[in-house]
Amino acid sequence: MTHCDQSAATPRTNLSALLGLDAATTSAPSSFFATASASSGVDAASRRLNALFPMTSLLSSAPCASSSSSSSSKPPQQVLRSASANTSSAPAASSTSHSNSSNISSSSNGSSKSQRSPTAQKSNSRRRGSLKHTQSLPHKMPYKICIIGSGNWGSAIAKIIGNNVQAHSGVFDQHVTMYVYEEVVNGRKLTEIINTEHENVKYLPGIKLPSNVVAVPDVVEAAKDANILVFVVPHQFVINICKSLHGKIAHDAKAISLIKGIDTTNGIQLISDVIRDELNIEVGVLMGANIAGEVAAENFCETTVGCANVRMGGIYKQLFNTSYFRVNVVTDTIAVELCGALKNIVGVAAGLADGLKLGDNSKAAIIRIGLCEMMKFARLFYNCNDFMVYFESCGVADLITTCAGGRNRKVAEAYVQTRKPFQQLEAELLNGQKLQGTLTAKEVYHVLSEKKLTQEFPLFTAVYQVCFENLDPQLFLTSL
Amino acid sequence: MTHCDQSAATPRTNLSALLGLDAATTSAPSSFFATASASSGVDAASRRLNALFPMTSLLSSAPCASSSSSSSSKPPQQVLRSASANTSSAPAASSTSHSNSSNISSSSNGSSKSQRSPTAQKSNSRRRGSLKHTQSLPHKMPYKICIIGSGNWGSAIAKIIGNNVQAHSGVFDQHVTMYVYEEVVNGRKLTEIINTEHENVKYLPGIKLPSNVVAVPDVVEAAKDANILVFVVPHQFVINICKSLHGKIAHDAKAISLIKGIDTTNGIQLISDVIRDELNIEVGVLMGANIAGEVAAENFCETTVGCANVRMGGIYKQLFNTSYFRVNVVTDTIAVELCGALKNIVGVAAGLADGLKLGDNSKAAIIRIGLCEMMKFARLFYNCNDFMVYFESCGVADLITTCAGGRNRKVAEAYVQTRKPFQQLEAELLNGQKLQGTLTAKEVYHVLSEKKLTQEFPLFTAVYQVCFENLDPQLFLTSL
Repeated sequence: MTHCDQSAATPRTNLSALLGLDAATTSAPSSFFATASASSGVDAASRRLNALFPMTSLLSSAPCASSSSSSSSKPPQQVLRSASANTSSAPAASSTSHSNSSNISSSSNGSSKSQRSPTAQKSNSRRRGSLKHTQSLPHKMPYKICIIGSGNWGSAIAKIIGNNVQAHSGVFDQHVTMYVYEEVVNGRKLTEIINTEHENVKYLPGIKLPSNVVAVPDVVEAAKDANILVFVVPHQFVINICKSLHGKIAHDAKAISLIKGIDTTNGIQLISDVIRDELNIEVGVLMGANIAGEVAAENFCETTVGCANVRMGGIYKQLFNTSYFRVNVVTDTIAVELCGALKNIVGVAAGLADGLKLGDNSKAAIIRIGLCEMMKFARLFYNCNDFMVYFESCGVADLITTCAGGRNRKVAEAYVQTRKPFQQLEAELLNGQKLQGTLTAKEVYHVLSEKKLTQEFPLFTAVYQVCFENLDPQLFLTSL
Repeated sequence: MTHCDQSAATPRTNLSALLGLDAATTSAPSSFFATASASSGVDAASRRLNALFPMTSLLSSAPCASSSSSSSSKPPQQVLRSASANTSSAPAASSTSHSNSSNISSSSNGSSKSQRSPTAQKSNSRRRGSLKHTQSLPHKMPYKICIIGSGNWGSAIAKIIGNNVQAHSGVFDQHVTMYVYEEVVNGRKLTEIINTEHENVKYLPGIKLPSNVVAVPDVVEAAKDANILVFVVPHQFVINICKSLHGKIAHDAKAISLIKGIDTTNGIQLISDVIRDELNIEVGVLMGANIAGEVAAENFCETTVGCANVRMGGIYKQLFNTSYFRVNVVTDTIAVELCGALKNIVGVAAGLADGLKLGDNSKAAIIRIGLCEMMKFARLFYNCNDFMVYFESCGVADLITTCAGGRNRKVAEAYVQTRKPFQQLEAELLNGQKLQGTLTAKEVYHVLSEKKLTQEFPLFTAVYQVCFENLDPQLFLTSL
């Protein structure tokens, strides 16, 4: 540890020094602005991303590095000031005892404790790209797409996908299937309506879908030839859909999950892990500040694709990017997905602040503290160390929309005003949608509690206590 | 450049690899949570900050590092992928030709071009702690405080300071002076009212000030014995106040500026630079999501102190921190101050989005893109490389309040709705307050234009074009 010299001519904070950015800046500041013509070792897809989004090259370009190079490059001045301080209360981020199971259990479920660990290293490496069967096999284009889900978000993304496969006809098969849970709407089958009227009249009325998107009521039939499975169903349906698909998908199929939230049926499990565990395929994610109706109306917005496989990241960009729906690609899939889940806890906190009429200063502070706890949680339990991801749409932008509108915020505000139970408010206010923030807060709290880390996450903990331990919302800021 | 191996077991993004965080985490993950009792090389003040705000130890602990160590630790995989790419269009962040002047000129003011450079390296090093006279001299406590300014923010901070000097009687002199521009209110002098009623009835009515805060109508008299000058006046008054104080302040005086915005009378100049240049003293800053009335009402919020001098950072924390006004200290003074200025441009953009009724997705995207352009501008022109600062209150939190409420947002929304000139709306809507976003956008645009960098800052550029080149707000997103 170096002591900070107060008279140093150039005091720096840890990150800038460790990044070694200054020296590079001195020689070539314009290297921020990578262009398609720039000569470098990165692949064409990455160069194109950088060219399209110069900011991306500053904030999320992602060359890979091995563990050894990262550890050998570590200078003595590092962010972890007291590395020798007590370690007993914190989880072992690289525990030598780990399991194949990737969910994080709470102490409340003691029966399966031994099968889980706070950071499932083996599972992390699978998430990050070491799947045996498919990962490094180049795929012969064109890719055939199946959209699994047809709610408002599924339908909005179907509009984009249907158009983009036509715009990139050499890359994608022109025929897109969309699994639609069959319902009867106004006396007609929903699949029939979609395939004749090209409109999901129940879940996204008023928006025309491209005619090359074909609704299919059988998920196995819909997915059977697809190389890319786009999961966009409510999270509680994922496991059964995957079980139906097990052994019945293409050998080189890959998945991308647009499902925000986590599975909490048995500890904390990422939705991408549910898919990966069931189908043993590579899974990317897409998350961002993407309210479905606004995307369908073609209002400008952004999104983040998390994909460890850089080549597939480029493919996903072609599949989803439009002039009004801007895609940035990062490699830290887990951080992107965790943002989509943990933000809901912060949304509850923001709603409590709104209910208490605390004002703009307080709400901004709560959002900021919540963002930091998200980063800290992802780092401690999932080894997500690239904080730049949180500057992407999946991070700060999605958090802003969640805390400005959003169902978790709405119900929490109503809770302060009415003190009705959360379950009752969920039923009264959400039209059948689920309140994820409270459930996520509960599972996160149990993990933190087991690891004696609740004091390090005062906002997450306070949200849990308000929702499940009857803490007076007036007191919820006192622990921050 | 290393090529990204798609099958690598642990692909990482650049930051995590360069930080070398993984190895440290493996050995001691709990080192995130530095406590006052932890043994490390950091000083007592920093340890206390970390203990009070465990998140701070993750996100803004700031050990210093020299250039050489930072450059020697730079592994080949770095954020700047195409360092060899063309450099002609970008400014030299470490230009060998620089001047003492620290303001950034626009090309519109050609007469003084030769005296300025886009990054005034020499001035940066002064900002960062190499002042000859005072920086490294330890000060004999107690510190005597003078608050220069008595508007609503000045009065709100006077309440905090008056109480905190009493809470830390060994550190601070108990007598606090507050320079008050003399006015007659209801037939009485404002200073007399403050010194008898202990209330600034004109600018912060209803809030009692501690009786140890004494209003003084003469700034030289108020400041003459002070060791810490707290600047909190509208920015247009700074220069003349400093000229009045020149040569009449204590030899070891230091200043901290609470003034958001930049001086645009002659290019871009930071307010802290105006103070430093006039008085030749060390200047820190305090910025955050701090609406004065809410702070005075003791609603929970946070703020950021930027201070290159770590010891003084600890002193400032004692001076400003309360249970409801939480202070985090970072060393990158310039980044903190730039946040307070550049956010106003983003506030204008957010207001345009509101006026166009684009919805939550678009507004979140605009805020995110704006934040990234702030980071990029600070990095390119001021060599601010620590992106973690933007996770502090001065960054994301202040930006959120600015874009949720805020005068710049308000006027820009009204502009879309009415198309009245900005100056007219400023007069109609702001009760004499100034609209900083448009002026800042203008100066920033001129700098970018001179450097041929407008395309790299599409949001800043579009705001300028709407405000000064009659660009239809409907088209303002097309360049993003």
